[in-house]
Amino acid sequence: MESALIAWLRERLPPHPLLRLGIGDDAAVLDVAGVDLCVLTVDALTDHVDFELSKDDPRRVGRKALAVNLSDLAAMAARPVAGVIALVLPKQNGLELAQGLYEGMLPLAEQYHLALAGGDTNSWDGPLVVSITLLGEVTQRGPLRRKGAKPGDRILVTDSFGGSILGRHFDFQPRIEEALLLHNRYKLHAGIDVSDGLSIDLARLAKESGCGAVLQIDSIPISDEARRLSKECADGRSPLDHALGDGEDFELILAVPADEAKRILADQPLDVPITDIGEFIAEPGLWQREAEGPRRPLVPQGWEHEFE
Amino acid sequence: MESALIAWLRERLPPHPLLRLGIGDDAAVLDVAGVDLCVLTVDALTDHVDFELSKDDPRRVGRKALAVNLSDLAAMAARPVAGVIALVLPKQNGLELAQGLYEGMLPLAEQYHLALAGGDTNSWDGPLVVSITLLGEVTQRGPLRRKGAKPGDRILVTDSFGGSILGRHFDFQPRIEEALLLHNRYKLHAGIDVSDGLSIDLARLAKESGCGAVLQIDSIPISDEARRLSKECADGRSPLDHALGDGEDFELILAVPADEAKRILADQPLDVPITDIGEFIAEPGLWQREAEGPRRPLVPQGWEHEFE
Repeated sequence: MESALIAWLRERLPPHPLLRLGIGDDAAVLDVAGVDLCVLTVDALTDHVDFELSKDDPRRVGRKALAVNLSDLAAMAARPVAGVIALVLPKQNGLELAQGLYEGMLPLAEQYHLALAGGDTNSWDGPLVVSITLLGEVTQRGPLRRKGAKPGDRILVTDSFGGSILGRHFDFQPRIEEALLLHNRYKLHAGIDVSDGLSIDLARLAKESGCGAVLQIDSIPISDEARRLSKECADGRSPLDHALGDGEDFELILAVPADEAKRILADQPLDVPITDIGEFIAEPGLWQREAEGPRRPLVPQGWEHEFE
Repeated sequence: MESALIAWLRERLPPHPLLRLGIGDDAAVLDVAGVDLCVLTVDALTDHVDFELSKDDPRRVGRKALAVNLSDLAAMAARPVAGVIALVLPKQNGLELAQGLYEGMLPLAEQYHLALAGGDTNSWDGPLVVSITLLGEVTQRGPLRRKGAKPGDRILVTDSFGGSILGRHFDFQPRIEEALLLHNRYKLHAGIDVSDGLSIDLARLAKESGCGAVLQIDSIPISDEARRLSKECADGRSPLDHALGDGEDFELILAVPADEAKRILADQPLDVPITDIGEFIAEPGLWQREAEGPRRPLVPQGWEHEFE
């Protein structure tokens, strides 16, 4: 499991004078040349895991690969600066495939004023791998981290959750502008983007912050796709299950002091709704509550890369 | 072919105010926050192409993956600052494999004061991919580019060439210190590191500089491994063939004004020998000459990722 590797690495990576924030967050934060902090993030996407090249348009795949990385910058409230791309291409139709991938990335790069600075192109007798690294810079408010949530903070989220597999996992808008606006205008304590699942990513944020989180189950904004998926698939998973565990929503989870959360909810300063879905508490772990009912444990659901 | 993709991309990537140097060199150069220039480079290594996990120790594989990227920074005369790593691991023994890879990287990262800033870890039903991105910074002399060689410049190289497959492709020392010393003490016009082959990488530097290059064949420093490989393999390739085309030497090729080259050769300021192996000329193309003989065309040999 990735978390086991991170724990192992944390013991072995020596502290470094330039490294303000190392492994375990959505991106690393660096003190380069004593100026605005640099943020560095990498994400690799692979065929049969993150997309199916046999049916998905390479342009959508390329767009997703870039958008996923932009979402990591959003989670840090960092502005995109530049990116480099490593492609590992199957030999057959490799050039056409590479062009399709870039055609999907270019409009998104332009939208976020991202300098695509080239990369590395390889071929092999295996499936496609797209690895993108982005360099970003944080604003004067500094980076938004996973660590920093405090007991009593509210859990705010952007938009809605679940069912991204029906198309949104390709076409989502990374919440760059939203994160920058919220981070600069309001006082946020911590943040993360939902890549692996609302409940598992919330549990990660809470753990990094050294506290627990209670989800107010009836408040969770469930997407139309989650309802559709629940109806169409006879696997017994409710719309709520999809919202809690599907992942790839790439929405923001934020830890916000209670009074500040009230202001945000009253202002609703984004084009997408912001919803209060619960609170952080001192007791560790992930919990759920319905209406005024009792607090019960909630097993985090979502995607984890499994390896032995 | 990678060069076809680069040509296609160059037409499509819009200019960007931060991008001093985009695709087609060993690394991209960025003007971040108006201070020392940032250099960003990425290289992905794959099983069965760059190593054979069935017989190669993961620690050597990890070390190579990092060293190859450090060599790209050396080619730009940039100081290593930070790195992020994306791993795509086969599911079986993935954790142990990842630990082995990192164990190979950590000493090298420490040697070059590189901040390893974490990364992304994935698993799949495919072979290992290691993609590393490094952030570097150039010195006050600016970046050393592929473009800049002038007719009359001498071709200088560090150490010797050929036969790296016998072990040096894992254990080479990236020429970071050497590149920084030479770039800061002498006037260099252009530079590249030899990843794909002495002749093919020299041809690339000449092409980017808009000139040609003549190799003085009898001056090329041929490694002991190239001689051994030529003797052991009955494929008819001479030690010189190995030196010209094997690649993965990760030595430097430099374009240096003639009088400055004389100084460098007299000083020999490095722990490894520096050799004059020919000159740049106005006429495009790659050429060879033996002793005082006539100039004849030389077909560049080396590794190119082939895809259709």
